[in-house]
Amino acid sequence: MTVNGSAHGNGHVASSSRSPLQLEPSSTEAARVLPQVLELVQGFIASGEEPESYVAPWGSIPNFRKAISLSLPDTVPQNNDDALLEAVKLVFDNSVNPWTGRFLDKLYAAPTPVGIAADLVLSAVNANAHVMSASPVLSLAEERCVEGLCEVFGFTEKKADGLTMPGGSSANTLAVQTALANIFPRFRAQGLLGVMQQLIEEKRAPRPLLFTSSQCHYSLDKAAISAGLGLDSVIKVDCDATGRMDPNALDAALTAAKESGAGTPFLINATSGTTVLGSFDPLPELAAIARRHHCWLHIDASWGGPIVFSHIATYSDLMKGSSMADSITINPHKLLNVPLQCSFLLVRDADTLSANSLDAGYLFHSSDRRENAAMKTMGCGRRGDALKFWLYWVRYGKHGFGHHVDAGLHLASELVDYIRSKPDQIELGPLADPLFLQICFRPLQPANGVSDVSQNGNVVAKQLSGAEVKRRSAATQFVYQELKTRRMFAVDFAPLPNGIGDYIRLVVHPRTRMEDLKMLVDQVAEIGQLYWQQQQQA
Amino acid sequence: MTVNGSAHGNGHVASSSRSPLQLEPSSTEAARVLPQVLELVQGFIASGEEPESYVAPWGSIPNFRKAISLSLPDTVPQNNDDALLEAVKLVFDNSVNPWTGRFLDKLYAAPTPVGIAADLVLSAVNANAHVMSASPVLSLAEERCVEGLCEVFGFTEKKADGLTMPGGSSANTLAVQTALANIFPRFRAQGLLGVMQQLIEEKRAPRPLLFTSSQCHYSLDKAAISAGLGLDSVIKVDCDATGRMDPNALDAALTAAKESGAGTPFLINATSGTTVLGSFDPLPELAAIARRHHCWLHIDASWGGPIVFSHIATYSDLMKGSSMADSITINPHKLLNVPLQCSFLLVRDADTLSANSLDAGYLFHSSDRRENAAMKTMGCGRRGDALKFWLYWVRYGKHGFGHHVDAGLHLASELVDYIRSKPDQIELGPLADPLFLQICFRPLQPANGVSDVSQNGNVVAKQLSGAEVKRRSAATQFVYQELKTRRMFAVDFAPLPNGIGDYIRLVVHPRTRMEDLKMLVDQVAEIGQLYWQQQQQA
Repeated sequence: MTVNGSAHGNGHVASSSRSPLQLEPSSTEAARVLPQVLELVQGFIASGEEPESYVAPWGSIPNFRKAISLSLPDTVPQNNDDALLEAVKLVFDNSVNPWTGRFLDKLYAAPTPVGIAADLVLSAVNANAHVMSASPVLSLAEERCVEGLCEVFGFTEKKADGLTMPGGSSANTLAVQTALANIFPRFRAQGLLGVMQQLIEEKRAPRPLLFTSSQCHYSLDKAAISAGLGLDSVIKVDCDATGRMDPNALDAALTAAKESGAGTPFLINATSGTTVLGSFDPLPELAAIARRHHCWLHIDASWGGPIVFSHIATYSDLMKGSSMADSITINPHKLLNVPLQCSFLLVRDADTLSANSLDAGYLFHSSDRRENAAMKTMGCGRRGDALKFWLYWVRYGKHGFGHHVDAGLHLASELVDYIRSKPDQIELGPLADPLFLQICFRPLQPANGVSDVSQNGNVVAKQLSGAEVKRRSAATQFVYQELKTRRMFAVDFAPLPNGIGDYIRLVVHPRTRMEDLKMLVDQVAEIGQLYWQQQQQA
Repeated sequence: MTVNGSAHGNGHVASSSRSPLQLEPSSTEAARVLPQVLELVQGFIASGEEPESYVAPWGSIPNFRKAISLSLPDTVPQNNDDALLEAVKLVFDNSVNPWTGRFLDKLYAAPTPVGIAADLVLSAVNANAHVMSASPVLSLAEERCVEGLCEVFGFTEKKADGLTMPGGSSANTLAVQTALANIFPRFRAQGLLGVMQQLIEEKRAPRPLLFTSSQCHYSLDKAAISAGLGLDSVIKVDCDATGRMDPNALDAALTAAKESGAGTPFLINATSGTTVLGSFDPLPELAAIARRHHCWLHIDASWGGPIVFSHIATYSDLMKGSSMADSITINPHKLLNVPLQCSFLLVRDADTLSANSLDAGYLFHSSDRRENAAMKTMGCGRRGDALKFWLYWVRYGKHGFGHHVDAGLHLASELVDYIRSKPDQIELGPLADPLFLQICFRPLQPANGVSDVSQNGNVVAKQLSGAEVKRRSAATQFVYQELKTRRMFAVDFAPLPNGIGDYIRLVVHPRTRMEDLKMLVDQVAEIGQLYWQQQQQA
């Protein structure tokens, strides 16, 4: 039998059976190409460390789009490394440089060289972590990291389990799906229609409801859409002024939902480290309420989870009560500087993950989930992301993670002091209590006098008129745009709760230099003054 | 304000604000550590190229577990690279080595050094591809690759779109969710309960149904569970002897579901490259049926999609009709040897992805999905996997992809000829028509005489008695276990459709050497003879 196809299109039929992806031994190609790429990597890191380097290569996306176009060639010269190396240079020349330490825009920062080493290893091993026979060490690393994390979060009473997921949103979504399947036995086969029938038979309201705070990550909304619950099934519970879910409001909302027949509560999501303010929901109170209302308790600790490693009791205590949760999401790719993505979903009771298993004769040759991680999740193929976290653990140790987190807390605290030292130029936004790693602030018009800083460090911005909120938000936007144009700092802005308007939001990363943070505050003050002057002249 | 926590636990409170993750400049650490890791990477690749190297380090997982344990230290000496480098060595020493070219077990193989270079770059840039401002080049690479793929698949009439997903299963799941949200306007807000109400109002059966072949990937089942449809909503359609969905059976199943009131069909999944046999469902026929029944047509081309690049018309024609699909999944991390994970979901009509958008004031500052890829999906944070595919495209070109695929087809064809040359020792299983890259075969008892090879190359194993199927499956299992013990080849086994029992399934990768493939066949024959001899003696 021969493959006897006629040529078509351009008429280039392979004259030999050689793949153009292997015209020379891979070892030869690797020895030639990879050191050159590594040199470019090292150049990128080193240039990031120069104090004058731009953090962002482009001040505006439209300008970037006008200047850069990426080719998709039909044919390329074989065995010529130039195009590849040019492309790699183009990536580095036009990417945000997190090694500056001035990328304070998001909840992640530069990895450490250990992270790059880990990605190198993962790429060379290229093993799929769906079954252990294909990826023995990567699967074992996943198992060990899950064990270590479960211990830290107090999942020790039952046999706990967990797995890596391709991000916090995926992990939260799998938690919602796992909860549905465990609470409602018909979910797996009959779906939500079966769940509804069961609830009707039990004379309960037919809509399963998910409760979470108004400050939660939007992935909870997406999880509800994904699972076929719909956005209407997500009940947003009020927060206090520091962004923590109010347990009384939660209890009232649960009771109201049941009494009104709006639906049947099945899951409460607690956020440990909210996206904007960095607040931690009170876990013991939420756990007690979850138990009383027979709800699955999930903790979205994607961002704040590593606080569990802190050596400062006030902070590590923020995770007290985690052992009473049914599931926890934590993303070492955020606060612990593991490269993207590295996210875990942990479950207190390993058996709950059996709801996600399906047989596949061509893949699974036993029903042991320890040897078949893909049985724990809705996906199949999986990158061995746990290896990255394991190599960090080997390199820095559990205590090292704690010192790392604490270094960030010290920086944040010092930065707040610095901002407070400029009460006529900068208005400090609401802060988490205790202070975490996000700081929201905005320029203040000097004529406004000293900013309204209350005792606990939060502005009383709620008392501002709508017009004043608009004015200050406009100043914030101006500063944000000017910072983008200057390209020395990357920060974000966010509308804060309670209608107090937009604030610059920066994320203090534990490896950021204090000088840089202060310089940023100075620039916000300076650009703000410029803005108000322009406004007065206009 | 100061972080005044008391020490707890071990009492190690950070005495300075320095994170142990940055005790020296990253450039210094990178310059010291990364070249050493790269040397280990090169050693791994080179050792894989040695003809005598084991492909798998362990013949059995229990033995592996007994021998290897991974530490999770509390404290580690600072600035000491030894533990890290030891850990990396442990990974390489105990991992499957795909660079041997004898890993024929799964639908992926070793990447090329270009893939390792790409992972290196991604790790150093560490940019989140959720918004373009954080990852300008990675986002642009994603956009360009999506454009290139959409063009290849004929998504040119409307404005098409797409994005990378963390795997084919995720991509298929997002396709199902996107279809639900577009076909049933209430899905997003009210979930499946709203969908059911709408269907009842329209006097249609209230259960949305998904149709796919009995040979489809199990991720379609998982997608149905994930989306709250439940397994009962998945209707499996019969295939012909070569593993292709039978269009008449599909049409009949659709009509029957509607007439019986079992449910309302909303999606048809076509598989381009099935997991076991490598068969391609007939797209033009399925597209016509989908249109007639008002169903979303999704193509799971995770594995077989790259056939579209083939220069052999018989093969590239297998994707004819793709332009009529609503969505397509393709995984360059499989046949195109891009490192795990690299998977795309493409949609014919860009607007259909708007169903997956949610506002998040702290993340999105415009509603332009081109600048906010996270708006297209249910996730949020995303690794910039498209960069890997773009660098492959730059290096090999579109025509190179075609020559690569064709090289694999030539190998597969030659291998089938070789197996056919041993009709008294090896029974060839059913083959895809035209032959793709999977070959199923098993040892044959010499007493059985010449294997029953029919004209089109498929066994007439259906005629075997149940006892004979069991005997041959047992021989297959024996060979599989012995191959595992020998560790020179990694292959899988799979139960084939129509109750013909287990077969060794190997995946021909385009960069596998013909000598190795022949050696594997020889070993299967040899071990088989050994087995039958043992059986006779017992």
